Amino acid sequence: MKASVIGATGYGGIELIRLLSNHPDFHLDSIYSSSKDKVPATEEYPHLLNICSLPLMKIDTEKITQEADVVFLAVPSGAAAKLAPQLLANDTKVVDLSGDLRLKNPENYKKWYKKEPATAEMLQQAVYGLTEWNRENIQQATLLSNPGCYPTATLLALAPALQAKVIDPSWIIIDAKSGVSGAGRGLSQMVHFAEMNDNFKIYKVNEHQHIPEIQQQLNLWDEETGPITFSTHLLPISRGIMSTIYAPLKKPMSAQQLQQIYEETYQHDHFVRVRPLGEFPGVKEVAGSNFCDIGIDIDERTNRVTIVAVIDNLMKGAAGQAIQNANLMFGFEETAGLKGFPMYP
Amino acid sequence: MKASVIGATGYGGIELIRLLSNHPDFHLDSIYSSSKDKVPATEEYPHLLNICSLPLMKIDTEKITQEADVVFLAVPSGAAAKLAPQLLANDTKVVDLSGDLRLKNPENYKKWYKKEPATAEMLQQAVYGLTEWNRENIQQATLLSNPGCYPTATLLALAPALQAKVIDPSWIIIDAKSGVSGAGRGLSQMVHFAEMNDNFKIYKVNEHQHIPEIQQQLNLWDEETGPITFSTHLLPISRGIMSTIYAPLKKPMSAQQLQQIYEETYQHDHFVRVRPLGEFPGVKEVAGSNFCDIGIDIDERTNRVTIVAVIDNLMKGAAGQAIQNANLMFGFEETAGLKGFPMYP
Amino acid sequence: MKASVIGATGYGGIELIRLLSNHPDFHLDSIYSSSKDKVPATEEYPHLLNICSLPLMKIDTEKITQEADVVFLAVPSGAAAKLAPQLLANDTKVVDLSGDLRLKNPENYKKWYKKEPATAEMLQQAVYGLTEWNRENIQQATLLSNPGCYPTATLLALAPALQAKVIDPSWIIIDAKSGVSGAGRGLSQMVHFAEMNDNFKIYKVNEHQHIPEIQQQLNLWDEETGPITFSTHLLPISRGIMSTIYAPLKKPMSAQQLQQIYEETYQHDHFVRVRPLGEFPGVKEVAGSNFCDIGIDIDERTNRVTIVAVIDNLMKGAAGQAIQNANLMFGFEETAGLKGFPMYP
Amino acid sequence: MKASVIGATGYGGIELIRLLSNHPDFHLDSIYSSSKDKVPATEEYPHLLNICSLPLMKIDTEKITQEADVVFLAVPSGAAAKLAPQLLANDTKVVDLSGDLRLKNPENYKKWYKKEPATAEMLQQAVYGLTEWNRENIQQATLLSNPGCYPTATLLALAPALQAKVIDPSWIIIDAKSGVSGAGRGLSQMVHFAEMNDNFKIYKVNEHQHIPEIQQQLNLWDEETGPITFSTHLLPISRGIMSTIYAPLKKPMSAQQLQQIYEETYQHDHFVRVRPLGEFPGVKEVAGSNFCDIGIDIDERTNRVTIVAVIDNLMKGAAGQAIQNANLMFGFEETAGLKGFPMYP
Repeated sequence: MKASVIGATGYGGIELIRLLSNHPDFHLDSIYSSSKDKVPATEEYPHLLNICSLPLMKIDTEKITQEADVVFLAVPSGAAAKLAPQLLANDTKVVDLSGDLRLKNPENYKKWYKKEPATAEMLQQAVYGLTEWNRENIQQATLLSNPGCYPTATLLALAPALQAKVIDPSWIIIDAKSGVSGAGRGLSQMVHFAEMNDNFKIYKVNEHQHIPEIQQQLNLWDEETGPITFSTHLLPISRGIMSTIYAPLKKPMSAQQLQQIYEETYQHDHFVRVRPLGEFPGVKEVAGSNFCDIGIDIDERTNRVTIVAVIDNLMKGAAGQAIQNANLMFGFEETAGLKGFPMYP
Repeated sequence: MKASVIGATGYGGIELIRLLSNHPDFHLDSIYSSSKDKVPATEEYPHLLNICSLPLMKIDTEKITQEADVVFLAVPSGAAAKLAPQLLANDTKVVDLSGDLRLKNPENYKKWYKKEPATAEMLQQAVYGLTEWNRENIQQATLLSNPGCYPTATLLALAPALQAKVIDPSWIIIDAKSGVSGAGRGLSQMVHFAEMNDNFKIYKVNEHQHIPEIQQQLNLWDEETGPITFSTHLLPISRGIMSTIYAPLKKPMSAQQLQQIYEETYQHDHFVRVRPLGEFPGVKEVAGSNFCDIGIDIDERTNRVTIVAVIDNLMKGAAGQAIQNANLMFGFEETAGLKGFPMYP
Repeated sequence: MKASVIGATGYGGIELIRLLSNHPDFHLDSIYSSSKDKVPATEEYPHLLNICSLPLMKIDTEKITQEADVVFLAVPSGAAAKLAPQLLANDTKVVDLSGDLRLKNPENYKKWYKKEPATAEMLQQAVYGLTEWNRENIQQATLLSNPGCYPTATLLALAPALQAKVIDPSWIIIDAKSGVSGAGRGLSQMVHFAEMNDNFKIYKVNEHQHIPEIQQQLNLWDEETGPITFSTHLLPISRGIMSTIYAPLKKPMSAQQLQQIYEETYQHDHFVRVRPLGEFPGVKEVAGSNFCDIGIDIDERTNRVTIVAVIDNLMKGAAGQAIQNANLMFGFEETAGLKGFPMYP
Repeated sequence: MKASVIGATGYGGIELIRLLSNHPDFHLDSIYSSSKDKVPATEEYPHLLNICSLPLMKIDTEKITQEADVVFLAVPSGAAAKLAPQLLANDTKVVDLSGDLRLKNPENYKKWYKKEPATAEMLQQAVYGLTEWNRENIQQATLLSNPGCYPTATLLALAPALQAKVIDPSWIIIDAKSGVSGAGRGLSQMVHFAEMNDNFKIYKVNEHQHIPEIQQQLNLWDEETGPITFSTHLLPISRGIMSTIYAPLKKPMSAQQLQQIYEETYQHDHFVRVRPLGEFPGVKEVAGSNFCDIGIDIDERTNRVTIVAVIDNLMKGAAGQAIQNANLMFGFEETAGLKGFPMYP
């Protein structure tokens, strides 16, 4: 199957190139960028010397759909909504990594993204690609909306507890931390090495666009879920997300019981690893891999749960999950092209 | 005034040496270590060449009390409780940076520290040195218990809101993150550079010994404060703590109103800086200084507050606050020896 | 083919596990450690959960040789010399990643390693595995001595210029820098995160055991090579080596001419990439891959060459090159199991 | 004495603000920027809250010279040459941190800086501020040209050996490494955190503008000095420079003898610390201080010296040395305002 990447110069794009170049079933056929035309990819990314000879091409949706079986859209939010309809024309399947198709309610999109939402048709057609929780729909999808990085870690962490009704969803606090690649490749004072090194910052307090994405899914799982609090911080590392989550128990239970719920829930999911009770994952332990690792605890002093999930934001939080979803959409093995171990140390 | 440092080879000790060596009123007279005797400090810390010619001496409490007007105890918890009574014998004042004298209830100490508590007499005599909130007692103290690094940031952040009764203290979630120097100078796999670099880890989940210290003070301020949830993470940086705090409002109020409470509360406190509304501090913005910077927000969607405080864990979280307290104990200017700016970048 | 790793808990060992677990032709069958017995690998390395179920076993050379077709020896120098003869007994092939079999002259080993050298028989049998320059011998080898990390980068960088007799080898200055994983997983003050972070250190000045290894090979290539100067520094990164090399030209030539020599020399070597003239590689551009990237310049002001080579010290500098060599020893494709791209960013 | 800083938003500027704000003899009176006017400094640098209430002002040289006794010029090369003559008009003394006044030969400046040189008058008037080697002239200076960061470390390291004629200056290789703040506060892909983190890069190979500055001074000390080779690399740290230097001995001598030369040379220089023989400095051991630490070795195998010098590039490599020079120009104690210890860890 021929695959194309649009938005190939961003970090999501370059990670897609890395994964697709060694994928057993997809063949990376062409790469596109809004800002380049016929420029060797190595000019933008010297590390691709001899291993990716594709040129960066100007986006031409008609040409793309004639040639590609699947297109990965790794463009900024706002741009994807415009490209998706054009790309769907010729039986090409589309995996969109932007935020444009995640919120079912266009008013919500307007409020949080401060941009024009996608059409109702697109929003309806788009299948939310939180793989472990939506496999059947994903297998049928032609337009896939890949979840955000923070929502992926957070939702995988909360799903078992929320669905088993063990937590009281009236308040849920999510304190999330991300590596700097999550902020994209664009330049700004905040991501200047000398200022981010040895630093740790909170940003977009109570205004992050992933809030409504998480809220939407939690309410689908448990409509009694109250408004969540979700905070995002920037870590002085290149990749990795940790989501630390706090919620009250509905009624007292032991950590062992909760652990069992988590282990059973994810026992058949290769990419979600529940850590043994008492052990919590560090972000480096999934770096470069598609794993989401989860650790849980119950504090008897407070009757609250602590749930910790880590992912590599460019993998399970973006390109990796996008490939995982594309594998399902094309009937390939779910783990195809995603068997790389975490790179440790 | 002659000052001595016991436990000079640890990170708290070395920071005390840095500060006392340039202090206008204290003179660093001698430094002690449990593991060295008559060893030049430069052998342990080459950066002290030509600027600290003191030898590391074996701890001899009788000699110390005969010579020193003030002793800074920067030894591990457990050791301080034993040294403090001996040091107090000869009119020497003691500033203890360990956790041994912070918990007024010895049972609490046993439970969280898993060591033998200090004597009731010591616990009663010890004055808790959260400077901004206990100045009068500190000025009279001969035995000062310097607060923990996490409690300092957390308590300074919560005090105005809690005391003004604007938050409902039935649940308070504190998600704290610290630089690696907070874990001490001892060796372990967790602090191996290759494993902590690019990493971010949660540790001692629901078991950190600073939980009862924070709880104790919050209950003094508002006895209705319920059991807090307090989590600690390790950041891949050398110094710095951020405490991100969540709590429900008692009744709706605007962020502007809360901001005003914070600004008024700390208007005369040099070392606590309330950031302008909408701005949040990064840990690097206080590195090397004794400042605690605070930013606040109220989320109208959830009716909850977000309070963020940052400190340098070796300064306001340890040696800096210890000097600040010693200044008060001896009637010096509170900021003496602590005027260094944050080192940025 | 069944493969075993001895010394699996070190960084070389864990990287071998990563590579062998996804190798198309080798099957990782068992892993051994001097310090563990029947301990799940996940106990030492939690990131292996669900993907490596092998237990760490006590070293039993007889059992190993009965079961394994190839053994990768990733133990410290000194230990390998003793294990190798026992392992070679039963037709098992051995790839030794230590320094024990690299120096042909045992006196040299004694002087630089300060340990007892391997037997003359072992030293004679061992084939030096600088793959690109010794393929024919490697294909016949049963005992392979894998080059050191610094020598790999340095020798690949110098080979074309030295062999083409364009540099005057009376003096060659090699200024090398390595990530901290190169110092191993053992604990020491130097690799404590808080002390190595934001730091950069020179170590083993004029005493590094890789000096005689580099010298030996250079003299084989050009017997007129004078004594080299080789320095090693520690970088505050997890992986990566840069070797910056300076030497005088024999007679004036243009950078273009030298560039052509380099490009022609390595045109058929997949893992050595000569960068376009004017471009120099950063260490991150090979991280996680088996590439050695090289950039060159000639300074007309000084008539000297500057040659820069970068590798991932755990890959081309250890486990990656070991696999590359094993591939040749067993007649597999040279790049088998080594097709992973650099992980960027 | 009233001091002004022009170019206050750059890293050199902000470090000057840090130092001057706690200087016993200078009073920081005003700060200027080419891009701001009447903007509070805290808007650019939030860490200055409550401790620097000065506004950033538009550069007005007439106003500045009427008010300031000394002006620190921390603007980019090219701009300083134009401002200096205007500032010198009213008896104001000028300390220029740019490269504009360092090269006595304007043709040299044109060639390496690719900009228009300063006037011959300015070049003649400017005193080169390598403090330890030019005190008498500095004391008389009204226009001081502060040395570059790399030249400071390199020249202090080479001076004793070169002047004692122990090295053969026909070839000297200088391999230098700098923290990212040395590249300035401007944005570029190279200083994007996600790309510089875990990276190490060589840049401006054989083209760095500090080459002629170092060469010029070395030739003043020993006119037989041949063309030097000088390379620069970027370290993934915020501050710090290491210069590793190699040169042949004129005739064999012991490391002890060379050590003695170094110790005697710098015995009265507070800010140059010669490490004990066998010990080499790491960059972190001078961070935040004005020290230049030096370690030396002689390799009997090669008859070459290795000299290592480290500085904090923003301190002894820029703002610190500028203050040190200004202290001399005004007859203050040379160490005034510069007594801060290295911040370790």
